[in-house]
Amino acid sequence: MATTNGKVQLHCPVPKPETEIITLGHGSGGILTNQLLDSGVFSLFQNQYLDERHDGSVLRLNGKIAFTTDSFVISPIFFPGGNIGELAVYGTVNDLAMCGATPEFLSLGLILEEGLTMDDFRKILTAIKAAADLVGVEIVTGDTKVVERGKGDQIFINTTGIGHLHPQANISACRIRPGDKIIVNGEIASHGIAIMSVREGLAFESDIRSDTAPLHQPVLALLDAFGENIHCLRDATRGGVATVLNEITRQCPLGIDIRETDIPVQASVAGACEILGLDPLYVANEGKFLSFVAAEVAGEALALLASIPGNSQASIIGEVVATHPGQVIATSIIGGRRMVGMLPGEQLPRIC
Amino acid sequence: MATTNGKVQLHCPVPKPETEIITLGHGSGGILTNQLLDSGVFSLFQNQYLDERHDGSVLRLNGKIAFTTDSFVISPIFFPGGNIGELAVYGTVNDLAMCGATPEFLSLGLILEEGLTMDDFRKILTAIKAAADLVGVEIVTGDTKVVERGKGDQIFINTTGIGHLHPQANISACRIRPGDKIIVNGEIASHGIAIMSVREGLAFESDIRSDTAPLHQPVLALLDAFGENIHCLRDATRGGVATVLNEITRQCPLGIDIRETDIPVQASVAGACEILGLDPLYVANEGKFLSFVAAEVAGEALALLASIPGNSQASIIGEVVATHPGQVIATSIIGGRRMVGMLPGEQLPRIC
Repeated sequence: MATTNGKVQLHCPVPKPETEIITLGHGSGGILTNQLLDSGVFSLFQNQYLDERHDGSVLRLNGKIAFTTDSFVISPIFFPGGNIGELAVYGTVNDLAMCGATPEFLSLGLILEEGLTMDDFRKILTAIKAAADLVGVEIVTGDTKVVERGKGDQIFINTTGIGHLHPQANISACRIRPGDKIIVNGEIASHGIAIMSVREGLAFESDIRSDTAPLHQPVLALLDAFGENIHCLRDATRGGVATVLNEITRQCPLGIDIRETDIPVQASVAGACEILGLDPLYVANEGKFLSFVAAEVAGEALALLASIPGNSQASIIGEVVATHPGQVIATSIIGGRRMVGMLPGEQLPRIC
Repeated sequence: MATTNGKVQLHCPVPKPETEIITLGHGSGGILTNQLLDSGVFSLFQNQYLDERHDGSVLRLNGKIAFTTDSFVISPIFFPGGNIGELAVYGTVNDLAMCGATPEFLSLGLILEEGLTMDDFRKILTAIKAAADLVGVEIVTGDTKVVERGKGDQIFINTTGIGHLHPQANISACRIRPGDKIIVNGEIASHGIAIMSVREGLAFESDIRSDTAPLHQPVLALLDAFGENIHCLRDATRGGVATVLNEITRQCPLGIDIRETDIPVQASVAGACEILGLDPLYVANEGKFLSFVAAEVAGEALALLASIPGNSQASIIGEVVATHPGQVIATSIIGGRRMVGMLPGEQLPRIC
């Protein structure tokens, strides 16, 4: 009846097995690390690359490659609409997509806090595998570290991704021109509100779920159809749509006009924002991106995007202008104009 | 006299500037994140890739590429011989080298704990930059997250690396043959003892410093000279030399004989191990690797290795045998033979 942490407990009539947990020994590099590797926890990732059990994997790549990294420290690790596992896959997949690349290979770096239950760990790894399979991306190299209780927070995940650039991709903030239309691929602000609802124990309408989703399909469809007319792409994660737009106006010295009436927000999310006094423009997304598109193809691009499942609420929310460089101006529902700055301070820490 | 955290403090006669620290807002994605990016903290990394400030960078790659990831959670973050910054660069550089690749590009994922001083942060970034420059590797994409106090431990770093394989590299545990000689590139166990000395407040002889160092030069020199005769390479980090040897005997069903008299250990490190009751074979290294080399070139390979600065104590420590498959047997100084297993349990958490 000795248990994993060395304590002996007696129960009658039948001993209840103690929950398996991650211990510091699992990060030692020694027997326990190898037992963890052999335990089946990781076997769902089995492929020719990981079977080598070397310090890295060898890939064949040719041409222009996008390379991007992201660490995920979201709290809570399970939330309405997903968990940190799929978020970590889609987050990096989406960063590759924003470069105009097809996601192909991911690395997986795990920092586990001692005491994480093996059950939660398995759920997260299962979500990682399912997300990777959905996208068609392979996890080819990884690393696991364990830190003492109170020196981490259950699990942090780093994913770093590689993918070949779409042959017609030429994505850069420098390519944005006055007149470009700005398209968002759907309703904004659900991720941030979903996380906030769990974090703050608020009971919003039950349909508010994180929008976490892979974005490579709509992006690759846009590039297939419109190539170099897609000038720039950005996913609107931390800091929301407003922050991305402001970053863009800093990088290309142009202005941006948006119309609040054209920005799609799910009614329940809009309601929650109102209750909380939040502007949806600043709330984080995990499945929304902005395309800066040459005006002449904007209508067609919108129609294409809206025809792709999950993107039916796509909308042209505004355009790039030569006036007021460096500023984002929103026209409100009643016609007033206001400057939309970057997210000041911290809205909600650890949103991704 | 308003200070960074918004409090106003009065001091006479001269206000003492409050120490700048990392706050949650630095991870918001908004103004503070951008201020951090613009503050000069990151400007030492400036290059054409990072100047784009996109979600990823675009590289041109052709052929066989090694891809590897590692997270660094070492405690303390400053230690005799280095800090977490250079460790994070060399660790991934070395994993690329063990694949037989020239390190070329790194991603940098930072997880900062609220309260990390800007001064420590700058020191670590400076060490990262210096290490990257020494190796000739470019940091081309990055990400910074901030977690609340007590949910991290000052700083965790993930680096993920990319490099082209050496044209003559054919490195795999499957290529190890009976008769192969095992070469270590220098004195073992200094990293673990250096960390332990700081962690446990032990005052060993002052010359014990971490061996953290890049290993690509000796590896590439070996591949240049001996190509496919270099069968396998492994750096002996967590779990030490003993654990790496055991992993190898699991992957190729062969045995390994080593001679304790041939294993180089700095006298002060050996003394510290004796005091602490530790076997140097299990103590972590950060600049030591094992080469499994065809017997016919082993003497020349050793001579070449020993001629490279920093590797003068290289030594043939044993050989691969067809007898006792799956076992590592050490011959002691007095001629006794003992089985050397994998590191059981946890020797020293967060050694890297």
